Amino acid sequence: MGARSQPLSEDRLDKAIRLFWEKGYYDTSIEDLMARTGLHRAAIYGEFGSKKKLFEALLTRYRATVTAVKLAPLKSPDAGFAELKQFFRQFRDAEAMSRERLGCLMCLTAAEVSPHDPSIARIVSSYLDELRALFRRACLNSLARREVRSGTDVDQVADYLAGAVLGLMTLARAPAPRSALVHYVDGVLGFLNALRPKGEKR
Amino acid sequence: MGARSQPLSEDRLDKAIRLFWEKGYYDTSIEDLMARTGLHRAAIYGEFGSKKKLFEALLTRYRATVTAVKLAPLKSPDAGFAELKQFFRQFRDAEAMSRERLGCLMCLTAAEVSPHDPSIARIVSSYLDELRALFRRACLNSLARREVRSGTDVDQVADYLAGAVLGLMTLARAPAPRSALVHYVDGVLGFLNALRPKGEKR
Repeated sequence: MGARSQPLSEDRLDKAIRLFWEKGYYDTSIEDLMARTGLHRAAIYGEFGSKKKLFEALLTRYRATVTAVKLAPLKSPDAGFAELKQFFRQFRDAEAMSRERLGCLMCLTAAEVSPHDPSIARIVSSYLDELRALFRRACLNSLARREVRSGTDVDQVADYLAGAVLGLMTLARAPAPRSALVHYVDGVLGFLNALRPKGEKR
Repeated sequence: MGARSQPLSEDRLDKAIRLFWEKGYYDTSIEDLMARTGLHRAAIYGEFGSKKKLFEALLTRYRATVTAVKLAPLKSPDAGFAELKQFFRQFRDAEAMSRERLGCLMCLTAAEVSPHDPSIARIVSSYLDELRALFRRACLNSLARREVRSGTDVDQVADYLAGAVLGLMTLARAPAPRSALVHYVDGVLGFLNALRPKGEKR
């Protein structure tokens, strides 16, 4: 079968995402990608032109297929305090994440690649903007419903929570016990609970 | 001047640390290291044997010369609540960090290299153990002095704060505005303030 006849199926793209997610951008070679996906070099270059262009396309696919699922609780226009907690709680209960310790490809790329590469930084920045906007809206809804104290700074909360996601996902890849991940999420939930109106902590 | 006659001076080691810190482990080549430090290939291999062994030695030097300075407030055996806040506040005020956006070499390595490399994972793990131990001791001291509420779970707080450092340092490298870093630190300080005995929040 010739290289050009191999379809860049969703399955092959997902295998490529998984490889970059495990190894990071710089340590993943074209040879690694060929071995993992079964694609020939000509198919990769023919479709994307370069490893970097492939990676950019995969980051966009990762956002559509992986982070979108995790962010689902926050995507409802009336998401509020319960959804903020639900978003973080899913990682506390995510046995699969703790077993595999992959963290998040977008968060890894934020630290590994975005400082050196403007076009990849734009993709990461757009993702972080979405995170902040979702947290901000949920916080505004919480304010309107008096689920958090009046005077709560929604921009501060949104920036903190976006950084808290980067921390969680870096900790997931770091050599730390499973209990550290649970304790970390409990800390973020503690931050959220401290925003509750007085007498309503839980 | 022959390769062997070049001393591996502290200045050259610090230049090599800086290069790995900027680019990460995988994207830094021996050629990059030669160009940045002025060392010949034979001097690097003769002294260390491999890029990996050089990197391991530099991580140890980084810990002794860079993280030790940042951790100074927590190294006093009677460090307490004030020192926990002081430790995080220094990053809120660190203009240099926000200008250069380098974050922390140890935290970058936690995500980039430690998932694939047991000997580097051990170095990162030992650093995270130190972080947790320092946070835990300061929290225990705070408990004894009633600076935090009785019943505060010192292991949970220590794990959360170690993860909060990873979050801060990943955010520092990420494409995010300076204000996001300030808001992130304010969130961690908010978590700490929520530990205060009732009626003593500040």
